[in-house]
Amino acid sequence: MDKALYDRPLRPEPWVDRARRATYRALDPAAHPRGLSAANAVLAALIVAAVAAAVLETEPTVSRGRERIFGLLEVFFTTVFAFEFCLRFWAEAENPHLGGGWRARWRWLVSPAAIVDLLAIAPAMVMVGVAPSYLLRLFRLLRVLRLAKLGRFSRAWSLISEAIFSRRFELVLTAFVAWMVTLTSATLLYLVEGPVQPEKFGSIPRALWWAVVTLSTIGYGDVYPETLLGKILAAFTAMAGVGLIAAPTGILAAAFSDAAQRHRELEEEARRVAGDITD
Amino acid sequence: MDKALYDRPLRPEPWVDRARRATYRALDPAAHPRGLSAANAVLAALIVAAVAAAVLETEPTVSRGRERIFGLLEVFFTTVFAFEFCLRFWAEAENPHLGGGWRARWRWLVSPAAIVDLLAIAPAMVMVGVAPSYLLRLFRLLRVLRLAKLGRFSRAWSLISEAIFSRRFELVLTAFVAWMVTLTSATLLYLVEGPVQPEKFGSIPRALWWAVVTLSTIGYGDVYPETLLGKILAAFTAMAGVGLIAAPTGILAAAFSDAAQRHRELEEEARRVAGDITD
Amino acid sequence: MDKALYDRPLRPEPWVDRARRATYRALDPAAHPRGLSAANAVLAALIVAAVAAAVLETEPTVSRGRERIFGLLEVFFTTVFAFEFCLRFWAEAENPHLGGGWRARWRWLVSPAAIVDLLAIAPAMVMVGVAPSYLLRLFRLLRVLRLAKLGRFSRAWSLISEAIFSRRFELVLTAFVAWMVTLTSATLLYLVEGPVQPEKFGSIPRALWWAVVTLSTIGYGDVYPETLLGKILAAFTAMAGVGLIAAPTGILAAAFSDAAQRHRELEEEARRVAGDITD
Amino acid sequence: MDKALYDRPLRPEPWVDRARRATYRALDPAAHPRGLSAANAVLAALIVAAVAAAVLETEPTVSRGRERIFGLLEVFFTTVFAFEFCLRFWAEAENPHLGGGWRARWRWLVSPAAIVDLLAIAPAMVMVGVAPSYLLRLFRLLRVLRLAKLGRFSRAWSLISEAIFSRRFELVLTAFVAWMVTLTSATLLYLVEGPVQPEKFGSIPRALWWAVVTLSTIGYGDVYPETLLGKILAAFTAMAGVGLIAAPTGILAAAFSDAAQRHRELEEEARRVAGDITD
Repeated sequence: MDKALYDRPLRPEPWVDRARRATYRALDPAAHPRGLSAANAVLAALIVAAVAAAVLETEPTVSRGRERIFGLLEVFFTTVFAFEFCLRFWAEAENPHLGGGWRARWRWLVSPAAIVDLLAIAPAMVMVGVAPSYLLRLFRLLRVLRLAKLGRFSRAWSLISEAIFSRRFELVLTAFVAWMVTLTSATLLYLVEGPVQPEKFGSIPRALWWAVVTLSTIGYGDVYPETLLGKILAAFTAMAGVGLIAAPTGILAAAFSDAAQRHRELEEEARRVAGDITD
Repeated sequence: MDKALYDRPLRPEPWVDRARRATYRALDPAAHPRGLSAANAVLAALIVAAVAAAVLETEPTVSRGRERIFGLLEVFFTTVFAFEFCLRFWAEAENPHLGGGWRARWRWLVSPAAIVDLLAIAPAMVMVGVAPSYLLRLFRLLRVLRLAKLGRFSRAWSLISEAIFSRRFELVLTAFVAWMVTLTSATLLYLVEGPVQPEKFGSIPRALWWAVVTLSTIGYGDVYPETLLGKILAAFTAMAGVGLIAAPTGILAAAFSDAAQRHRELEEEARRVAGDITD
Repeated sequence: MDKALYDRPLRPEPWVDRARRATYRALDPAAHPRGLSAANAVLAALIVAAVAAAVLETEPTVSRGRERIFGLLEVFFTTVFAFEFCLRFWAEAENPHLGGGWRARWRWLVSPAAIVDLLAIAPAMVMVGVAPSYLLRLFRLLRVLRLAKLGRFSRAWSLISEAIFSRRFELVLTAFVAWMVTLTSATLLYLVEGPVQPEKFGSIPRALWWAVVTLSTIGYGDVYPETLLGKILAAFTAMAGVGLIAAPTGILAAAFSDAAQRHRELEEEARRVAGDITD
Repeated sequence: MDKALYDRPLRPEPWVDRARRATYRALDPAAHPRGLSAANAVLAALIVAAVAAAVLETEPTVSRGRERIFGLLEVFFTTVFAFEFCLRFWAEAENPHLGGGWRARWRWLVSPAAIVDLLAIAPAMVMVGVAPSYLLRLFRLLRVLRLAKLGRFSRAWSLISEAIFSRRFELVLTAFVAWMVTLTSATLLYLVEGPVQPEKFGSIPRALWWAVVTLSTIGYGDVYPETLLGKILAAFTAMAGVGLIAAPTGILAAAFSDAAQRHRELEEEARRVAGDITD
């Protein structure tokens, strides 16, 4: 009963406060630990649509003769996102992590999330065609990252980042060895194939393009050795490529396995501690 | 002795009932927990043959002049599968999981398995050449899935689906990051290569085709960068591609390892519990 | 002292018996649990050289004008392997696993290893140019497998085969799903690209070639979609290809991890049991 | 206090000794267990720059007309590295692992690290243009390996080498099976495609090039089967390729997981032992 008294103000709360709180809950993904609020679901769909429009606008066969439609779409998306930005600024006063009130608003305004949001509405605001404006519009894709703050994704993020971080030295070493192998095979192929195909293997930087395309097992087919010795060296490079892909995969697999086990153990301990308290 | 009395009816069972029960046992894969009944082995072979016939029929050098043979094959397969469908409908009355009798038959008729079976005999029944009929015939391949109900495969299914399900958020995040990388590299290559190769990099959607083919390490070779900066960016994309393949592989490896361990622990506990009861 | 008496015959052993025993020890890889006997090392090198000669003989730019050299090499290799075969037949009488004496010789003669050895000397013996004789000579490569009987490799074989066998159902299911995806994407591309590229996508079997080359991420570049819809479908196929490669890799990684742990546990138990006995 | 007395000599240490000690600490990566000394950071950057210059010099469009700049750069890099070599030789007298004094200097001079350092300054010293001098300059890349002696990387090296070493037999077996599959598919494609494409499949060595490019999933597209049977065999080869990449990845993943666990256990034991001593 005491708790209820403390929570509920004695005077009825003004409707503005209630609206602001509801707005904050609707817009902040962390406020919905288990799911996605309706407002955020609509916003996510709008962001994807805005990015798709910016992507499609660059394709002449789509945009030619439809400049007006894309212009209107842009105005629409910018208006919605600008309105959302203002709402979020207003509602951020309810954010308990930033202190609340105007202080919370200003602190939010200088956060990376808010800057990304501001950049996302900037292009159409600036209206000056200096830089390719679709580039700025693609920044909107970054806004989808906001969804990653959702409770269900935060564990996944921490698992992945923990796994990669715990093996950063192994991964850096593997990348280093990979570059040594790339440079070595490029140098060898330059020596062997250079005189025969000067356009494609006439220098180490040119042979590096072949080495990267081969070791990543992409193999476009624009460059490949033609001499016998070049093919033998390329065969060894190909085998090294399999190993260079297998090693980081194996390291990451082991790291993910460890991180998942650690998470499970922490959860079990948390549950046991909670059980001890309950008992 | 009591058990035997209970199982065997006092009056001799009519032959129809015995035949229906035998048919049910022959056709239901779950009834043979350890192996594949002869009837189901023959049916699986017929399904594969029917799919192969539908596939081969689309190849003009094979089907030209052999339309009659393919037509007869189709009539044969449809007749066999229609007969099997009727038998199964009749025998489904013995299915203890669906309640038995006509009730089981109707419940089976609206199950996905029965609808797939019905679709598999539909094409030749309809006989009207509205849609490409071989498309419907390919549905027969789905019928092979029925074999997956076999006891020995059910554990494999549950292991695989459990592993993928337990890491669904990690896999979705990886896919999300993969799409961010794809879109970013497509945008960069569009900016760099677009003016040089307008046909291939002249818009972001066109550059996306290159990005997908590169990041999945397929590398058809129909599109590749030609400028120096484009090649440098493509080399970084190639390295990102190796990471984007390594991450889900590592996540799945760890998940399969966990799922297999959980299965083993459950089996051991089941065996221990069984041992306690026996003692 | 009793043991020494029992081991050493009272009369001095005839030199033939000693030679036979030494020959058996020199030729049987299992007799040298830790390393490779000198005779087997030489034979392994000869097998590799014989295979290399058979491979090089098919290359016209190498073999033209050198038919005599290759013929002499062939006579040399066959003589050596025939001599080795006779020696092995004679020495096999010492094999304790086959019972010893003539009985062991005949049992060895019908074993797969002996048949492979016989096939390896057959080509030059037959001398009739019915089939391409180099094909039979390549069988010699199989003889290198004999080295796998070495103690240090037997554990590796059992680890690999145990890991693959323990997940055979998961791997078969993955292969099955892979074929479903292959056939589905081939059918879709046949429908979409067939009218545009009838030579390459004009039938499902032709589209299957594209699907296999794409899903295995090889991407020769001889076949690729050209329509927009075809490229979109191919992009999804490419993503599926990444998953279809990640799944078996993950399953095998988990299986190798389990198998290695089981081996370690067995070794520890064996050591503990041995320790108990010693105490 | 006693300790301070023991450490600090009674007479003030001459400045030469102090300078030598400081130089040794600045140049030896192992002397900075946690980070990279400023001198080593600068040297690492210089090595990378020297290698980049040697690589770029081979590209005619970059080096033409800039021979003087590259020559000056070479003189600069060689001077710095020669000065560093002399400093290191002088300071190595402080190396406690090699005994100290002149003895340590001579022992260091014949170590592989010193020989690599000497080779790195040799090219410009020799000044005779017998061999392509950039090749010797590329040796400088090996000097970056010195950084691997850093404390934070030594654990990563031992983890990776331990993982690969513990499964060397499994990896050798996989490589052996891979070569058997490569040779078998090359032989089959030679038989099937040889008569149709004599230029590309006319001998087993030529078909081997195709087999390596296919099994490593590179797929340049310069060689691919054209007959139906050839394509069917290539499809099976492609599937084998997926398995041949999955197997070593799985083996390495399990090995990395084991090695990481062993490291953790050793660390915990070391901590427990240290705790026992402290208590």
